Amino acid sequence: AEISWSGFGRFGVVYEDNGTDDKTFLEQRFQLDVEGTTETDTGLVVGGKYRIRSQETAVGNDADDAGYLRTTEAATVNAAQMFITSGGLTLEVGNIDYALDSMANLALGTIGLQNFTSFLDGPGYASRGASNTGVAVLYSMGGLNAHLSYDMQDEATDAYVSYDFAGYTFGVGGQDSDTYATEWVVAFGGTVGTVDFNASYVDNGDAGAGYGLAGHMAVASGVKVGGYLSYDDASEDTGFGLDASYALGGGANLVGGAYTIGDVTEADFGINFRF
Amino acid sequence: AEISWSGFGRFGVVYEDNGTDDKTFLEQRFQLDVEGTTETDTGLVVGGKYRIRSQETAVGNDADDAGYLRTTEAATVNAAQMFITSGGLTLEVGNIDYALDSMANLALGTIGLQNFTSFLDGPGYASRGASNTGVAVLYSMGGLNAHLSYDMQDEATDAYVSYDFAGYTFGVGGQDSDTYATEWVVAFGGTVGTVDFNASYVDNGDAGAGYGLAGHMAVASGVKVGGYLSYDDASEDTGFGLDASYALGGGANLVGGAYTIGDVTEADFGINFRF
Amino acid sequence: AEISWSGFGRFGVVYEDNGTDDKTFLEQRFQLDVEGTTETDTGLVVGGKYRIRSQETAVGNDADDAGYLRTTEAATVNAAQMFITSGGLTLEVGNIDYALDSMANLALGTIGLQNFTSFLDGPGYASRGASNTGVAVLYSMGGLNAHLSYDMQDEATDAYVSYDFAGYTFGVGGQDSDTYATEWVVAFGGTVGTVDFNASYVDNGDAGAGYGLAGHMAVASGVKVGGYLSYDDASEDTGFGLDASYALGGGANLVGGAYTIGDVTEADFGINFRF
Repeated sequence: AEISWSGFGRFGVVYEDNGTDDKTFLEQRFQLDVEGTTETDTGLVVGGKYRIRSQETAVGNDADDAGYLRTTEAATVNAAQMFITSGGLTLEVGNIDYALDSMANLALGTIGLQNFTSFLDGPGYASRGASNTGVAVLYSMGGLNAHLSYDMQDEATDAYVSYDFAGYTFGVGGQDSDTYATEWVVAFGGTVGTVDFNASYVDNGDAGAGYGLAGHMAVASGVKVGGYLSYDDASEDTGFGLDASYALGGGANLVGGAYTIGDVTEADFGINFRF
Repeated sequence: AEISWSGFGRFGVVYEDNGTDDKTFLEQRFQLDVEGTTETDTGLVVGGKYRIRSQETAVGNDADDAGYLRTTEAATVNAAQMFITSGGLTLEVGNIDYALDSMANLALGTIGLQNFTSFLDGPGYASRGASNTGVAVLYSMGGLNAHLSYDMQDEATDAYVSYDFAGYTFGVGGQDSDTYATEWVVAFGGTVGTVDFNASYVDNGDAGAGYGLAGHMAVASGVKVGGYLSYDDASEDTGFGLDASYALGGGANLVGGAYTIGDVTEADFGINFRF
Repeated sequence: AEISWSGFGRFGVVYEDNGTDDKTFLEQRFQLDVEGTTETDTGLVVGGKYRIRSQETAVGNDADDAGYLRTTEAATVNAAQMFITSGGLTLEVGNIDYALDSMANLALGTIGLQNFTSFLDGPGYASRGASNTGVAVLYSMGGLNAHLSYDMQDEATDAYVSYDFAGYTFGVGGQDSDTYATEWVVAFGGTVGTVDFNASYVDNGDAGAGYGLAGHMAVASGVKVGGYLSYDDASEDTGFGLDASYALGGGANLVGGAYTIGDVTEADFGINFRF
């Protein structure tokens, strides 16, 4: 029987231009994660977890704008996830991890401080508030990883299988849902020379498709730079991004980045930390 | 000065037939309990506690039903209980433990995974959200236990006195309230041979009365079975129940059970765990 | 990386006479504070914190009153504060500590169990729920303390500078805001003989001004008494207060007090504790 706490925080300045308006705001996120588990006589681990997250509300630009709002949301304790793990097999219920949302190399990733970029349209773990109820089965054995999840409220099923070989990970996944657009995905990642990269294809059916490519490289002691390239088949827009981070030690980093696709540009700079 | 955390979780499948409709759903409950205390120079323990609970919402049967809903509620931190304890005497304020709701042997108990069954109609500790404000005094000395509680919002007073002798516990209690039906209760429990039993009578005044009898027996290593018998004086219905649990170790158990009274039947199977 | 918990609780009986009605109620407050931090290689401390507070709702007097309500509010996890500290310099974002609200000797203080009395009209740390987003810079070096804070939602700026010399602390502060009345403040405190005192002047512009004087003295082992004197320039009312506390050890105290100004009188008695 064990209860463990961990946390994550970040804050900084974000500039957003959506093609019509631009705004600059203070981005914030602070969360505590708690997990409680017990182990049975045969080695099953049974437990559950919560996330407690507070964040900014970011509507409007400055106090003279009509839509102006600049407040910090009260933290919520989210819906619980419970799980049973034995060897490489895990069963999750409640506020589960969904397959495609958890799939390695599928998203471009978090560009800079906070700009999480992905072509995936599917369900995900709810970090705040209530959630749909889901059931998931995860399996890993040697280099094989498989994840099957079902959203009981939206009747959405998604799954992936991935395999690690020679330092590379290759995965394919799919989703069957009336609620979400994504149908098929392919994701690939690994290391080429000094660059860690991920490449992905997301087929969103009638809503088009997205291609992503990202690479990260350590350029000096504690300094990493990343480059991002994407293509949105529906809008025929190409996206470019760059970011850099400097590790301060103790899990804290100075980070900044910029990403532009079509008429949309977002740039940010700040600090993040884990404890 | 000490802060201690503990937890409880359970999940499984529940079948309910209320005589008109039947439904099958995924039951979930996950909670963390935290208690903070300090001790004075004279040995008084002063403190308070919270419960953080998430659970399923269970309305409707499947996604094709009109009333369908299958989501997991965000956890709430409930209303605080504060207390002072000295020797066998405890004062509670706020979200208190109410006497009859805390009385040993009064409820049939939790049949199977989650079917808590009782004829008591009275106030109880609020595990989620706000609560009425109450004040309670608890006393235990030797085999004597006494508990007096007052709900300030509903102006309900309830109390019991129980006594342990020769391995049996005998208790009587009463309630004075315009809000709740229960007026008088008697509860008795102990061990006969290899069976732990509890027997109770609940007088709900004009709303009738209820009789309950339950017994539990260890039948094999880690396996317990329970039997439940009840009679509802108002409806003239007799209730029968059975359940079984298998201890996995580490505070985790596989549990299942069924209970039927009148036109209502409920059966469930799942896992529960404490940590 | 460290996560630390601490807590505070209090409860007791409060009598309030606002000049028209009087009421007596059970006061309650229970809170847990959690802070998570990490330290960088250069010694920066980066972290964040939450407060989880439950309290009474106190409307009306007794159950026969129309406005009667006597319930205990569910605890909320408030909006997060994040911070970076290096040497004597601290940056806060989110649910920040505001300068005048944090200024030593400015408020009369908490009279008795719970009657916090101050002439300040300005923003403050939100102990429950959401908050305006703020940014603050705090600096301390030798006897010098400075605090500058900005409320982004209400566009309010406040600041103070104080200096400790020869056991006394002298501070001046100001606020620029369309939302809050306070414009200038002066606060002074220290020890004269066996009496700790604080004296303050709060200029609320067109809304008048307030003068405060308070002193506390240890009169016996564990027993402290306090006296309070105030003058409200707008209403030309003089306020008087007295309180006493008895330390039980372990951070727990029996406390009681009374304060009267104009037609308003408030008296209370109860227990508080820290852990």
